[in-house]
Amino acid sequence: MAKPSRIYLGTVIHSLSLGCLEVIERAAVAVDKSGRIVFVKDTSKCATTADYIDFPGAEVVELGARILIPGFIDGHAHAPQQTFLGTGMHLPLLKWLEAYTFPKEAKFSDPVYAAAHYRTAVKRHLFNGTTTCSYFATIHLESTKALVDIVLELGQRGLVGKVNMDRNSPPFLIEETDTSLKDTQTFIDYVLTKNNPLVQPVITPRFIPSVTSPLLTGLGQLSISHTPPIRVQSHLSENRNEIAWVLQMHPENPTYTSVYDSHGLLHDRSYMAHCIWCTQSERDLLQSRSTGVIHCPNSNFSLSSGILNVRRLLREGIKVGLGTDVSGGYTPSMLDAIRQAVIASKMVSIGQGSDAETGNEGEYDALSYAEAFHLATMGSAECLSLGDTVGNFLEGKDFDALVLNLRAEGSPVDVFDGDSTLELFQRFLFVGDDRNIEQVYVAGKRCK
Amino acid sequence: MAKPSRIYLGTVIHSLSLGCLEVIERAAVAVDKSGRIVFVKDTSKCATTADYIDFPGAEVVELGARILIPGFIDGHAHAPQQTFLGTGMHLPLLKWLEAYTFPKEAKFSDPVYAAAHYRTAVKRHLFNGTTTCSYFATIHLESTKALVDIVLELGQRGLVGKVNMDRNSPPFLIEETDTSLKDTQTFIDYVLTKNNPLVQPVITPRFIPSVTSPLLTGLGQLSISHTPPIRVQSHLSENRNEIAWVLQMHPENPTYTSVYDSHGLLHDRSYMAHCIWCTQSERDLLQSRSTGVIHCPNSNFSLSSGILNVRRLLREGIKVGLGTDVSGGYTPSMLDAIRQAVIASKMVSIGQGSDAETGNEGEYDALSYAEAFHLATMGSAECLSLGDTVGNFLEGKDFDALVLNLRAEGSPVDVFDGDSTLELFQRFLFVGDDRNIEQVYVAGKRCK
Ligand SMILES: [Zn+2]
Ligand SMILES: [Zn+2]
Repeated sequence: MAKPSRIYLGTVIHSLSLGCLEVIERAAVAVDKSGRIVFVKDTSKCATTADYIDFPGAEVVELGARILIPGFIDGHAHAPQQTFLGTGMHLPLLKWLEAYTFPKEAKFSDPVYAAAHYRTAVKRHLFNGTTTCSYFATIHLESTKALVDIVLELGQRGLVGKVNMDRNSPPFLIEETDTSLKDTQTFIDYVLTKNNPLVQPVITPRFIPSVTSPLLTGLGQLSISHTPPIRVQSHLSENRNEIAWVLQMHPENPTYTSVYDSHGLLHDRSYMAHCIWCTQSERDLLQSRSTGVIHCPNSNFSLSSGILNVRRLLREGIKVGLGTDVSGGYTPSMLDAIRQAVIASKMVSIGQGSDAETGNEGEYDALSYAEAFHLATMGSAECLSLGDTVGNFLEGKDFDALVLNLRAEGSPVDVFDGDSTLELFQRFLFVGDDRNIEQVYVAGKRCK
Repeated sequence: MAKPSRIYLGTVIHSLSLGCLEVIERAAVAVDKSGRIVFVKDTSKCATTADYIDFPGAEVVELGARILIPGFIDGHAHAPQQTFLGTGMHLPLLKWLEAYTFPKEAKFSDPVYAAAHYRTAVKRHLFNGTTTCSYFATIHLESTKALVDIVLELGQRGLVGKVNMDRNSPPFLIEETDTSLKDTQTFIDYVLTKNNPLVQPVITPRFIPSVTSPLLTGLGQLSISHTPPIRVQSHLSENRNEIAWVLQMHPENPTYTSVYDSHGLLHDRSYMAHCIWCTQSERDLLQSRSTGVIHCPNSNFSLSSGILNVRRLLREGIKVGLGTDVSGGYTPSMLDAIRQAVIASKMVSIGQGSDAETGNEGEYDALSYAEAFHLATMGSAECLSLGDTVGNFLEGKDFDALVLNLRAEGSPVDVFDGDSTLELFQRFLFVGDDRNIEQVYVAGKRCK
């Protein structure tokens, strides 16, 4: 057993598997010097206090009535888009891209501008309890390196992608195919040279319409040229016009999903945002490739994309995580992602959603809060190939954790006599916010 | 012209009519001693500063870059349900009522318990910028009086209803028909005797399944026995099982809506929550009676009720306001109601919602942020027969206002150079929270 350097005493809530929430009213969580969890003990089952606090040199941290939960894992966010969060939500997708996304992303050609704004964005994610975030940056190499540096500086766990775009993009936001590939290689080397497990590169073609076939092929080869393969993230099947466009561009492929697959981009270290409209054969393909799906319900609602049937994906054995899709979604808060995932699943459960026309009423149970919480922690961890490292408090994992205080000053949550731990937890999930997230730890290091 | 006693200088944003948002970058808002708006001037159009600040005895309040907006008007909230806000959201409606709503509401038989918990609830609404709230209390007369006292004490504008329930309710939460009617009369007298325009009684039959026909008739007569009639609020057409149940109980009535109507409960001072599944003939009836609809999107999502087609109601000339339906909805925040109303309307716009089967795709434009804001202010005001008193800053109305600071300490909103006023306002609507609501005024009196 590694040597505990710090022992947290408090209530622990984490998800062991889908719908299986473990609650330890009075737990001792020991963390070693490198930030790994040495043990999680239910103190009520220990014979003596010595069993869980008597370790030479270990600091004991009394959290009282506070609750320890695993940090949130945002499987899909656009770091530059924090700059226009919450604006233009009334515009249709194309106008929103033209008015906000593209001109704002273009500003990130300047690494100084980028660094300032990336710092704001990463801080905001951290303050909201996102200990791990999978970021889309922009096409710009130097700025994306800056994002890596900021993630490391602020202590977040980050998967960072330089975006690839070599077609169908505005002239000020398009790359030559060769340059795009070369810059991606350079970027990957830059990140790997950091030799810090907290930050990893992700191959990030924006989506099929903005990446040519040669570039897709090159990126697929780049991914598997490493062992293990470099992670891949992108968008898939977000809205119906997009799908029609992709099929028109790729008549050689039967489905949108198969375009990624035929370019070698779907494997067990790939994860795709949205996937709202994926057909049975596409879902089968995702499942067979062990590719994850990042559900971004706020974005799907806000961009009028549709309602993903998460329950069906789960039943089909597809990995599902949650994302904010800042700023297709209007908030960096994973609490909001949990709430909106519950809402989306409730709509599916009463026959709304992408398959309303085929009549799925009553067939799909809504997600419980415990299930949505699972998706925001373990589900995302598994999608991001971090399931052995974070997502819950199993021994040997890194201590990526939030300390919750439902009675924090200025808390938006009212607490009443007789509230059970699970009721407090539910109040946090549905009514709480960053004010209730008093402390944030990544690999044992406090970063809020 | 009444004499200005205070003049606020800052940015004004308010809604003049649906989709017609007025923005005055540098406005002067004069309020008289009784809390009424004397004038709103665009200072850039004034010849001299004397035109808008030179009034003997008037205090000038410089708000700088802060934004003044009308207070939010929550058209439907259950004051006792704040005690279990955000809990049990995974339970189906009936189990949720049994496990939470009914036992928790029963505790309000104790006026001391009630007063303590009502104070918490009203404070929370006020802190979230709800200057007017239409409350359901419980069946209990003394406790409901206590709610009235607390609303007055805290300075909110409140429409308060003692709930009527004389059938199909748990034994600990049911009234005799006569007692219910008598207590309602007593309650109305109690409130009217206060002779304070800020608090008004509302006749509040819970919903058709829990109120007998004789009681409904009595309540209808009670309403119109006053001039103007006492306001009426209830629930209507929230979910399909409920509708089937009502029609079974009232075979003499063709529709759910007509049950209220045939008991004299639909008039221009009535407003009904939900109305998700109202048919054309029911909507025609609501329109002809000038009865308002309170849209509670969070509740409709959270209780898996359905998605209301607000755009259609608006086109049909029906008054629509917004409500939180605490705690069918999980938050007292009207900002959330605005966000979820936008989301619900976006789902309707892509063919989801109560009429998915009849194929309404593309026929109904989503609500813009300006329209949703209108519903949360003027829309609710009109539903609650307060359109001449509050809802925007027209001269002669009461000064019910929020002072917004997008740069408040701890603000959840990031602000960037070059953000326009309307962009800041959108950020507030989609990303802001009570931290950005620095000051709250009701009838000119500050209550936050
Ligand atoms: Zn995205
Ligand atoms: Zn209600």
